[in-house]
Amino acid sequence: MVANESVIFNEIPKGYPEPGKTLKKVEGEIDLDAPLDNGAVLLKTKVLSLDPYLRGRMRPAEIQSYVPAFELGAPIVNFGVGEVLKSENAKFKKGDHVYGQLQFSKYQVVPKDAAESLVVLENKEKLPWTVWVGAAGMPGQTAQYGLRKIAQIKKGDVVAVSGAMGPVGQVTIALAHKVGAKVIASAGSEEKVKFLKEQYGVERAFNYKTEKASDVYAEWNKEHGPFSIYVDNVGGEQLEAALDHIGRGGRIVAIGGISTYNGQPYGIKNLFHVVAKELKFEGFIILNHTTPEFLKEFYSEVPPAIADGSIPIKEHVFKGLDNGESFATLFDQENSNFGKAVISLE
Amino acid sequence: MVANESVIFNEIPKGYPEPGKTLKKVEGEIDLDAPLDNGAVLLKTKVLSLDPYLRGRMRPAEIQSYVPAFELGAPIVNFGVGEVLKSENAKFKKGDHVYGQLQFSKYQVVPKDAAESLVVLENKEKLPWTVWVGAAGMPGQTAQYGLRKIAQIKKGDVVAVSGAMGPVGQVTIALAHKVGAKVIASAGSEEKVKFLKEQYGVERAFNYKTEKASDVYAEWNKEHGPFSIYVDNVGGEQLEAALDHIGRGGRIVAIGGISTYNGQPYGIKNLFHVVAKELKFEGFIILNHTTPEFLKEFYSEVPPAIADGSIPIKEHVFKGLDNGESFATLFDQENSNFGKAVISLE
Repeated sequence: MVANESVIFNEIPKGYPEPGKTLKKVEGEIDLDAPLDNGAVLLKTKVLSLDPYLRGRMRPAEIQSYVPAFELGAPIVNFGVGEVLKSENAKFKKGDHVYGQLQFSKYQVVPKDAAESLVVLENKEKLPWTVWVGAAGMPGQTAQYGLRKIAQIKKGDVVAVSGAMGPVGQVTIALAHKVGAKVIASAGSEEKVKFLKEQYGVERAFNYKTEKASDVYAEWNKEHGPFSIYVDNVGGEQLEAALDHIGRGGRIVAIGGISTYNGQPYGIKNLFHVVAKELKFEGFIILNHTTPEFLKEFYSEVPPAIADGSIPIKEHVFKGLDNGESFATLFDQENSNFGKAVISLE
Repeated sequence: MVANESVIFNEIPKGYPEPGKTLKKVEGEIDLDAPLDNGAVLLKTKVLSLDPYLRGRMRPAEIQSYVPAFELGAPIVNFGVGEVLKSENAKFKKGDHVYGQLQFSKYQVVPKDAAESLVVLENKEKLPWTVWVGAAGMPGQTAQYGLRKIAQIKKGDVVAVSGAMGPVGQVTIALAHKVGAKVIASAGSEEKVKFLKEQYGVERAFNYKTEKASDVYAEWNKEHGPFSIYVDNVGGEQLEAALDHIGRGGRIVAIGGISTYNGQPYGIKNLFHVVAKELKFEGFIILNHTTPEFLKEFYSEVPPAIADGSIPIKEHVFKGLDNGESFATLFDQENSNFGKAVISLE
């Protein structure tokens, strides 16, 4: 028997998640030599992703939504990377690194059914494992699907993106530039704005806490004509400003609403622009669209671009499991995380 | 010289339009024997359409929008039908009935440029001329384009539609039923609800003033599963309720926002459903989509269906020009107009 540890869903938060209350680290033990059921694998967890949408799973079980509520008292789950220690499943062998939905536990046995949805990461690009839950994982796929399939981006478009230092934002910017589109990007600190300008070469970056999105957009439009695509990670006031200033025929790619995830509803008063400017405002959950064709396009393009530096990425790596302190940084007002938030258990 | 009369844009309204202040009827005269410039036509106006969107044109000229502001002191314009009294344009001959943007004047000379966009109504179906600005005109085209091109309606869909006794609503209901979709329809009086049930055979009709849309939708969904399409003519609270209750993958056809046209903004707090339910929320202005192919499909289908009664229509005909009393009924709380509002000058 060896020591194990897990992060459990301990209490339903009323507003912001509170470390030690909402989530809690618990100790346990696991017998790494115990025989596995047919089809199961034993994993040592390497990486766990921290994503804002998890807040939506921290709710009473009776409230329906697009992802199931977490079970109180049980470990939370999210995308992660694990190393196979033992396998009773022909798809996986010892030493493989697998990607998929993992428990927030140091070690875990994945039963047959769940193991079927894990995929082996070849990692020909020799990227850090953390990258496979960020720019090279679900958030990167979200950016690519949003720009290409929903917004049908083309040369000459101008893309406004909020929450731009998150992993969806980072890949959005790089893919927009790749087709010859310009980018207006917002983030929550001066440091992030500097990074967006210097590392991403964003045409206009701003700190939404010190500059109003509506002022920035109005100024941009006056100089360059209206922007044509808005990739929305935040909702609320920035979405309202985008509706006011996006051009006729604009496309709004609805990806997230982090500004409202902790019970701060914001009333959007200008939706008539959807009619008047003939907007297309469309949401999607990437998990429903990862067809083999789409994934092939994604994996042949994005991980190599990360490896050669043409998609520069920025990660905020937290070491080891905690009481939810790392998760809470996704929402704190100091924007204390900077880049894609991940937990590394190396 | 004969007496003429026109309805002019007299004063910018603050909220609801006020008869005699916002719009005003003025007398004048016109020489019906005066020679016409090359390309011009002289019309006797037969029908003028009253549509809610006109409220948006009654604004200060410096505010940009999708339709130009009306000019203060000049006659307002909208879709209408006129009879050609004299023509210096080869496209039109005396006795033709033409459809297009007309002044709210008893007689009018349409100069060459404007005349180019008029079309001759053959009216093989022998419909009353009023119908050509309603179910057989722009509002009917809006319904068809919205259901077919935006929502891609198919058998088995359930369509919720607000403002259902308006002309867009009437045609929406008929076209939905035609493909085997069910309809939930809202309107503003018991009389309208009765009509929707008895004349249109709507599966669930309700008066939004006495039943809450959210309750009606919740009840429907419990019994039948969630509705899949929302055709929005009103915005505001009913749109918010639709967002709450429309099913995953739902399509919201954004056509109008009459509940907010007179300066009553409503904050929509639940737009995250666009992400979570993967909604497609899309607006359009029919004038930008009336390609020859689309019009061919429309004219071969809708006017004959009106003529044979399979699209039952209901009109509210006002006789003669007025000081804006007829226009004001589009917004009054008593819902004193019932059906497509038109002015007839016969």
